[in-house]
Amino acid sequence: PSRLPVYATHQVGVAGTVFDEATGRVLVVQDRNKSKNTWKFPGGLSDPGETIVNTAVREVFEETGIKSEFKSLLSVRQQHQHPGAFGNSDMYFICRLKPLSFEINFCQQECVRCEWMDIVKLVRTTDTTPITNRIARLLLYGFREGFEKIDLQVKELPAIYTGLFYQLYHKELPESYEQICS
Amino acid sequence: PSRLPVYATHQVGVAGTVFDEATGRVLVVQDRNKSKNTWKFPGGLSDPGETIVNTAVREVFEETGIKSEFKSLLSVRQQHQHPGAFGNSDMYFICRLKPLSFEINFCQQECVRCEWMDIVKLVRTTDTTPITNRIARLLLYGFREGFEKIDLQVKELPAIYTGLFYQLYHKELPESYEQICS
Repeated sequence: PSRLPVYATHQVGVAGTVFDEATGRVLVVQDRNKSKNTWKFPGGLSDPGETIVNTAVREVFEETGIKSEFKSLLSVRQQHQHPGAFGNSDMYFICRLKPLSFEINFCQQECVRCEWMDIVKLVRTTDTTPITNRIARLLLYGFREGFEKIDLQVKELPAIYTGLFYQLYHKELPESYEQICS
Repeated sequence: PSRLPVYATHQVGVAGTVFDEATGRVLVVQDRNKSKNTWKFPGGLSDPGETIVNTAVREVFEETGIKSEFKSLLSVRQQHQHPGAFGNSDMYFICRLKPLSFEINFCQQECVRCEWMDIVKLVRTTDTTPITNRIARLLLYGFREGFEKIDLQVKELPAIYTGLFYQLYHKELPESYEQICS
């Protein structure tokens, strides 16, 4: 099949699940422009040229005032005819972040509420979306049985032609498999 | 931050690693338009509105003549200023497929070679790209220690507003976590 025409079909969004392992709580928000009191994870669209990792950290900070660092990629959602994408498709990445600060200072334009919520409470609430509920269950699984069960690691590799770097996400590869000689 | 303007920034491509568990071999090709004898996995760009799952199966069939079924998502790569994307960014998904046929009938326009290669040979060859080498190691790990170590499952969920479905990919969630009541 021909490689032409080549054009962009997807917008990219990123959500950050900032999980505090010391307390078992996760950072959640309620959007201002929603009819229901729906808890969700902070996030938003990537700027052009921005990495998934950087979008996650930036959007969490802009929306909630919480500083964080990237730990892993947890999930990807692909949605066609996304209502917020004006006919484009939407690729949405859900990341796990570690909090570096704890005092919430949320964006009043975007959110009406923001809090650290116990992960079990988030799993049990009906005031949420199907995707948030599923990711909450995944986080609870990781918290109780080890985050290596749910985490995808990121590795930066050099692109041959551009001299730039790309990011590759997958389950962690044990050292013994890294070291097999070519 | 404003949600406007919203526009597509990424093209989406998909590679299929068709792995035959009975023999430990994987389907690889060599592109016609490359200077080196570089082994890679078959794949290509998604059509507008096409799911990752369907692109993987379609591209493998068009390129190699092999019929297959989707098993899991293994990896995602994000690359900005991708040479083949004319200034767009590229999101590339690597899937694991199960072969449903074995007789190769490859596309002569796209490929110069196509074969079932032992996964250990693919891990050890230098005639490949960094990303293919890394995914080969991941496949070897899954083959030896269980594919549940590397697989992301896909789940179709209903989108609230459009009535359409979206696909959510993440590590399999144990039944006990699926069943916690809301």
